[in-house]
Amino acid sequence: MRITFRRVCDIFGTRKTNRTQPMVENVRLIDRTVSRKATVGTLYLSATHTIFVENNPETRKETWVLHSLVASVERPPTTPSGSHLVIRTKNFQVLELLVPQERDATDIHASLARLSRPEKYSELYCLSINPTANKEEREESWSFLDLQADYRRMGVPNNLWVGTPANSEYRVCDTYPSELFVPKSATPPVIVGSSKFRSRGRFPVLTYFHQDTLASICRCSQPLSGFSARSQEDEQMMQAIMKANPGSEYIYVVDTRPKLNAMANRAAGKGYENEDHYTNIKLQFIGIENIHVMRNSQQKIIDMGEVKTPSMGDFLWGLESSGWLKHIKAVLDAGVFIAKAVAEEGVSVVVHCSDGWDRTAQACSLASVLLDPYYRTMKGLMLLIERDWVSFGHKFSHRYNHLDGDPKEVSPVIDQFVECVWQLSEQFPCAFEFNERFLIQLRRHVYSCQYGNFLGNSQKERRDMRLRERTYSLWPQLWKDRAQYVNPLYRADHTQTQGMLRPNTTPYCFKMWKGMYNRLEKSAPPRHSPADLLTAVREETQQLEQELTNHQEVAPRGTAHSGTKQGIQTRSRNAPDEHPSLRPSLVLYVFTGLSPVDVYCWVLWGVGGGGGGGATAKSKMS
Amino acid sequence: MRITFRRVCDIFGTRKTNRTQPMVENVRLIDRTVSRKATVGTLYLSATHTIFVENNPETRKETWVLHSLVASVERPPTTPSGSHLVIRTKNFQVLELLVPQERDATDIHASLARLSRPEKYSELYCLSINPTANKEEREESWSFLDLQADYRRMGVPNNLWVGTPANSEYRVCDTYPSELFVPKSATPPVIVGSSKFRSRGRFPVLTYFHQDTLASICRCSQPLSGFSARSQEDEQMMQAIMKANPGSEYIYVVDTRPKLNAMANRAAGKGYENEDHYTNIKLQFIGIENIHVMRNSQQKIIDMGEVKTPSMGDFLWGLESSGWLKHIKAVLDAGVFIAKAVAEEGVSVVVHCSDGWDRTAQACSLASVLLDPYYRTMKGLMLLIERDWVSFGHKFSHRYNHLDGDPKEVSPVIDQFVECVWQLSEQFPCAFEFNERFLIQLRRHVYSCQYGNFLGNSQKERRDMRLRERTYSLWPQLWKDRAQYVNPLYRADHTQTQGMLRPNTTPYCFKMWKGMYNRLEKSAPPRHSPADLLTAVREETQQLEQELTNHQEVAPRGTAHSGTKQGIQTRSRNAPDEHPSLRPSLVLYVFTGLSPVDVYCWVLWGVGGGGGGGATAKSKMS
Repeated sequence: MRITFRRVCDIFGTRKTNRTQPMVENVRLIDRTVSRKATVGTLYLSATHTIFVENNPETRKETWVLHSLVASVERPPTTPSGSHLVIRTKNFQVLELLVPQERDATDIHASLARLSRPEKYSELYCLSINPTANKEEREESWSFLDLQADYRRMGVPNNLWVGTPANSEYRVCDTYPSELFVPKSATPPVIVGSSKFRSRGRFPVLTYFHQDTLASICRCSQPLSGFSARSQEDEQMMQAIMKANPGSEYIYVVDTRPKLNAMANRAAGKGYENEDHYTNIKLQFIGIENIHVMRNSQQKIIDMGEVKTPSMGDFLWGLESSGWLKHIKAVLDAGVFIAKAVAEEGVSVVVHCSDGWDRTAQACSLASVLLDPYYRTMKGLMLLIERDWVSFGHKFSHRYNHLDGDPKEVSPVIDQFVECVWQLSEQFPCAFEFNERFLIQLRRHVYSCQYGNFLGNSQKERRDMRLRERTYSLWPQLWKDRAQYVNPLYRADHTQTQGMLRPNTTPYCFKMWKGMYNRLEKSAPPRHSPADLLTAVREETQQLEQELTNHQEVAPRGTAHSGTKQGIQTRSRNAPDEHPSLRPSLVLYVFTGLSPVDVYCWVLWGVGGGGGGGATAKSKMS
Repeated sequence: MRITFRRVCDIFGTRKTNRTQPMVENVRLIDRTVSRKATVGTLYLSATHTIFVENNPETRKETWVLHSLVASVERPPTTPSGSHLVIRTKNFQVLELLVPQERDATDIHASLARLSRPEKYSELYCLSINPTANKEEREESWSFLDLQADYRRMGVPNNLWVGTPANSEYRVCDTYPSELFVPKSATPPVIVGSSKFRSRGRFPVLTYFHQDTLASICRCSQPLSGFSARSQEDEQMMQAIMKANPGSEYIYVVDTRPKLNAMANRAAGKGYENEDHYTNIKLQFIGIENIHVMRNSQQKIIDMGEVKTPSMGDFLWGLESSGWLKHIKAVLDAGVFIAKAVAEEGVSVVVHCSDGWDRTAQACSLASVLLDPYYRTMKGLMLLIERDWVSFGHKFSHRYNHLDGDPKEVSPVIDQFVECVWQLSEQFPCAFEFNERFLIQLRRHVYSCQYGNFLGNSQKERRDMRLRERTYSLWPQLWKDRAQYVNPLYRADHTQTQGMLRPNTTPYCFKMWKGMYNRLEKSAPPRHSPADLLTAVREETQQLEQELTNHQEVAPRGTAHSGTKQGIQTRSRNAPDEHPSLRPSLVLYVFTGLSPVDVYCWVLWGVGGGGGGGATAKSKMS
């Protein structure tokens, strides 16, 4: 193992130790299920991962935990058998270790506490491990998605909506992207004036244009209206948005907050639109709670998922009292309201919350998923996240605790969006190109910092950090691995898949997302989702298709049978090689009972550039 | 309409009226969803059904409700617009009618109250409507299942288990079947003595024999042990059961009741086995609650399913406080305990509760489903119900309220078994040959009395009623309709499908059975289950297979392409005609928003013999 503890210290520069190697032998990894069986092995601490390798020479099962995914490390009181360490990850897994020597446990605890709480961006995985190697590949990775092309796909710009150079240097709004679309009739003074009347300068701009009805979805932050203030330019901006939809005589302003919260903001000079001042707007409150309520609610459902043998009453009571599904329903209801207004009424909608970067991102992106089948494909969902979350200044680094920062800024905002998409996919199993794993993987990378996409809190911050020159983009990697993310039920031609989704949002239709929150159960014999099982059916179909193709090709030559058989065998023999990088993760999956998602690091380690030390460690270990 | 009200009165002989025709015009059928839209039409009362036919000449939508499936008819206070009638069915649907004249409403209410509460078996559908026509077909229907053949399939009789003639005339136990299997070493005096020491004479007999381990499942009722009584013969019988399993030195006695209930029974001279008196038995209590607790719990979940717009909190709180899923889990846990003992430990199990016909039937039949893949097929489940429920004296007529009887005898015992199978099918989507509709249909017929299978409370009662000469058996009809009950995911060769199922019974893995309890939602745009959607994939696969077959046949002659196309077209053109009887029900499904299950009567009406008047009414109406 070439990464010595000294190297770890070189990188982070804080720990003092007389060890030469960050490894501890005779550590026990304790099964957190009822059995509490223990496996004996060696614990390694690399620059990026905690790695447990079991001693059993036959299996040599490895468990890898990325430092940036560590949520907490607890040290329960020392027992006669040694010191316990409980590592909780940001993707809701728990690793319980028993370390024979208390001194070792103290060391590991202190190291992990530091390693899992970087203080500077430069300490993050994607900036510390994955440097400038392979420039071409890196640059290519950043051109994988093209937001402007997606606007063109929507038919924007057109004679109603035009690009504005107003924010090209982030001067009007430093949390907005540089390229924005506004109504054709919105002049620069109107833009600037409206911006001055909105919290953080986040004036109304286009996020989705619905070609069938010409209705649009715009987003902004709350107006600085207080109890009586008004802005002529802001009123003109709203009027311009209404006029950009020739078929409608009013617009909806959706305030995604509970009305009480919006009213409370007036005391601070903020608030919501006064319907008397704006011509033809209809104000609608939705009632999504704030980031603090959501953070607490998620903690409760995480705790629930960790209870080992809950009774039915415990489970249902815990689910209810967490309030989690109630919040998920509120977020989905917001999306449904907007989508129906746009598609069924043909009315444009302006969406905001307080600063317009949390609840607004949830509501707008869900409305797009409901309205536009493209966003139900893998690439479409990537684009949607790139647009409504990344480009529009969702504060990723604050919300997902990338650096050791203010815990009150942390909240599972994108978790809720991802879960809403999952709940939709359960209700419309044919409508989504991707499966649950894709969503879990997406969410994981929001937290992991293995790629540069989600660093910082705005486009400007990412530009200033020159992330495109220093990190890789996640999207092409997800795309490369798409074979494991395919929903075999997806049918682009199905009625469910075309046009708008109209989900049922009565409480019966929501359920706890076991795949996300109940990781403990993973140790039990694996349960197969219908989707997994269908992969088999789909594969059969593909084989038959292949067989038929071969037949049609070969038949005229009169060698149908031998040709057919070769066709199948070649295909099945080749299949695993199509994505060689997936093999190790699947193997590890079988070994450790963790999902492939959790050992993605494994693949990256071997495949990605720069991790020379890690790669050596890997080969030495396996 | 040929069935006049007089004919209804002829049959039931109670109502006096001056009407000549049981129909009321200008009745409104009110949509129970939030919209509360009303459809105007005519209400007909036939001898067997309440039928609402809407006036709209284009659709003429029909809604049929079988009298025997009516659970209650309520009359809320009369309003200026007329009198309301709320009909609740035993399969959890609600029909709300608005009748213009109060007198008519009173008439309908009184008629339905009488028609839905028959006082004699002869008033039941299968005995009143379906008389002796087509003797051959009827007799054939009763020989569709062969219980003895299923015992032979298990390898019984053998050198361990033999048939006993002891109960051939129901003299030892009048609620047991005439043909029983007991350990080879159990002599007639042991049988009779054991029978005398068991409640209702229900001594331990074989219900399932596991060929791999030679362990068996036996069933009986509680012993008449009181605080100290014992029976040498009963002890010998248990010993004989243990000896009939050469590989094991003890047996489990599973008392499916909560231990407190079992103890309370001692005061009445009943109770449970004293482990000191029996050699090598291990007593295990499971804790399934009694029929009264279950009845109340189901009522709560039915009420929950009827709430129109529950909040998430209402829903989860209601689900928890109904206790329903807790009970479902207890029943499934009983089955899992028994199955594991038999398959994993190779230990025989004797199961009882109080009288051994409710919880015992649930636990034994679930253990069989878990142990033996055959009982996960359609025919296998039919056989299992025929054995563990019908032949072993589950009191169908009392439990499912076939006649106007003691409401305290009513309890959803088989509902819980059916739901456990459904919960299993959700956890093992490839393991069951049938889909949810099959289970719902099965349960429906337990209540409907359209067939003779579930009449009475024991084999003896059914024999005394000569039901085989007077009614049809349900099983061949279900089998005939099997195309609509197929689970497209079922794979006989899948690892899940072979051997024992090991379900996860943590609370996370149970959910409310929407398809059963939340019928209101049916009015919303239909939701497709993964199973439904998979039918499409499966059909594609079949088409490809067919295409390939055609290819292989045609290829040598060099006309591959045209041959292929013909093959597909013929197939798809023929498909709908394969089961012409299903067409009307599917059409009605689309019209009425009811599931095909609920309009089975429709098909039966047209297909079954005897319903001449009904058939005429039907053609007149449509």
